[in-house]
Amino acid sequence: MTPTIKLSSGYEMPQVGFGLWKVDNKVCADTVYNAIKSGYRLLDGACDYGNEKECGEGVARAIKDGLVKREELFIVSKLWPTFNDPEQVTPVVKRQLADWQIDYFDLYLIHFPGALKFVDPSVRYPPGWQYEGDKIIRSKTTIQDTWRAMEALVDQKLARSIGISNFQAQLIYDMVRYARIPPATLQIEHHPYLVQQELLNLCKEEGIAVTAYSSFGPASFLEFGFKHAEAMVPLMKDPLITDIAAKHGKQPSQILLRWATQRGLAVIPKTSRAEVMAQNLDCTSFDLAQEDIDKISAKDGNIRFNQPSNYFATQKMWIFG
Amino acid sequence: MTPTIKLSSGYEMPQVGFGLWKVDNKVCADTVYNAIKSGYRLLDGACDYGNEKECGEGVARAIKDGLVKREELFIVSKLWPTFNDPEQVTPVVKRQLADWQIDYFDLYLIHFPGALKFVDPSVRYPPGWQYEGDKIIRSKTTIQDTWRAMEALVDQKLARSIGISNFQAQLIYDMVRYARIPPATLQIEHHPYLVQQELLNLCKEEGIAVTAYSSFGPASFLEFGFKHAEAMVPLMKDPLITDIAAKHGKQPSQILLRWATQRGLAVIPKTSRAEVMAQNLDCTSFDLAQEDIDKISAKDGNIRFNQPSNYFATQKMWIFG
Repeated sequence: MTPTIKLSSGYEMPQVGFGLWKVDNKVCADTVYNAIKSGYRLLDGACDYGNEKECGEGVARAIKDGLVKREELFIVSKLWPTFNDPEQVTPVVKRQLADWQIDYFDLYLIHFPGALKFVDPSVRYPPGWQYEGDKIIRSKTTIQDTWRAMEALVDQKLARSIGISNFQAQLIYDMVRYARIPPATLQIEHHPYLVQQELLNLCKEEGIAVTAYSSFGPASFLEFGFKHAEAMVPLMKDPLITDIAAKHGKQPSQILLRWATQRGLAVIPKTSRAEVMAQNLDCTSFDLAQEDIDKISAKDGNIRFNQPSNYFATQKMWIFG
Repeated sequence: MTPTIKLSSGYEMPQVGFGLWKVDNKVCADTVYNAIKSGYRLLDGACDYGNEKECGEGVARAIKDGLVKREELFIVSKLWPTFNDPEQVTPVVKRQLADWQIDYFDLYLIHFPGALKFVDPSVRYPPGWQYEGDKIIRSKTTIQDTWRAMEALVDQKLARSIGISNFQAQLIYDMVRYARIPPATLQIEHHPYLVQQELLNLCKEEGIAVTAYSSFGPASFLEFGFKHAEAMVPLMKDPLITDIAAKHGKQPSQILLRWATQRGLAVIPKTSRAEVMAQNLDCTSFDLAQEDIDKISAKDGNIRFNQPSNYFATQKMWIFG
């Protein structure tokens, strides 16, 4: 049974979920169906992943087949920056809910800090970063104004919990001062090469649950041709990780997930293979020695891969600078 | 003649100034007087440095002796977090101006992001981080509310330009969306061990001038007993720096300052020695080879010393996390 994390909203969030970033549309409905069948209850999606319709098809089929009830699922989605103007928030959430064939999200996150100019869904959906051509155009909307609209989603019962993704300390400190409903979770890139311990400490202190994405580190970014991802020893082949895995009779991937979950984080691994789905979900069934946890944490090199500016050679975006 | 940087406010800021952090009260008035006599025109002070009265005495004496006129000086000060509630900003600025014996600041900065609970100056001044004992207590004031009060300082002609210090990218991106008067400058820790290139790129793009503090790196923090500062090779003794210095017939300190100024930053070194005062001010009179600049930049290790949590073992503050 997957452990849960109690959120500041009062709801319980499964500690291990299934991540839907980069799940191809053609296999997405089946993947979601199989994940639910494997025992996953948290599904982590986003407008930007471009597959929410297929996610909804997988969920609908799983419910229809009696694998699960809606209320047993914990469905997460995210607000893309082009919809951060307050008046755009509720309409896009309703559209995303319709794609998912549900009437509320368990958790809805601001995907990245910083509003971009609105792109009408009839023009392009999902809209991506660029307004047109390679131009990224900001909107004047502040984080506070977007957060007010996020809080209204809870009032409208369109989201049970609300949170943030890719936010750093200074912005969180500012948010907790103006939030009527504090962010329940923060989703961040987190793996042994990017531990961000001070950010984790801050979240613990503020009662914000943290979800790790890209738990396997550089492996998640090879497909984008990132040179610094290619240059690094894959974590799954790192002798420290493989030795600990051998000691426990587990897969390296399970060690990486346990390193995060045993330290209190939630994880959202992705895979298309049934046996790996089961392994990943099983990552809370054993315990690492504190010494091994510390050794893995000591690999920290503050190496971030999911930086918007990494994707755009010609664009000027320094969100984490 | 010291070059100047044109700020977005329209005013010119000297590129080399004199920093007043950690200048002992006993010698502060003389130090300020001597700095002005040496040719410094920018003086970088702050409420928190606890020496603004003495700074004012030094300035008054220099003006009285005919070394300089007020309008030839560029006087910088900073708003401490306990005065970030909007109604506290103008009163404390007036107090700081009275200490300096002047009627406007050339530049006034938010010293750190994040308001702390107000401490009445009659109780303790400067107030420091802790409200009482070792307790750090936040105020609910947001950065936006403080910035509105900063903008009002310009309207009241109490500050000609306003800016920020110790802010990171996400907060700056949020600020530029709501600012009526954009921040003219950002003051940050900057030395070869902490380059923060993406933050510098952002500022260039946004028209925010950057002032480097602690240009000599770990040397500035030895007196606090920071172990990671003690553990590092002092930049002034680093063979790369000393070799470049020998090549130019300059001091290592001048190389470190030129590395910053040649890349467009302002610097605010401090010293009590007359000959070093002159050397530091002279740091724009020669040029480094681009290759040498790049080699120095390549020392970057993202190693920050001036982190509030470094000073408080028992406190929980992760401003840069």
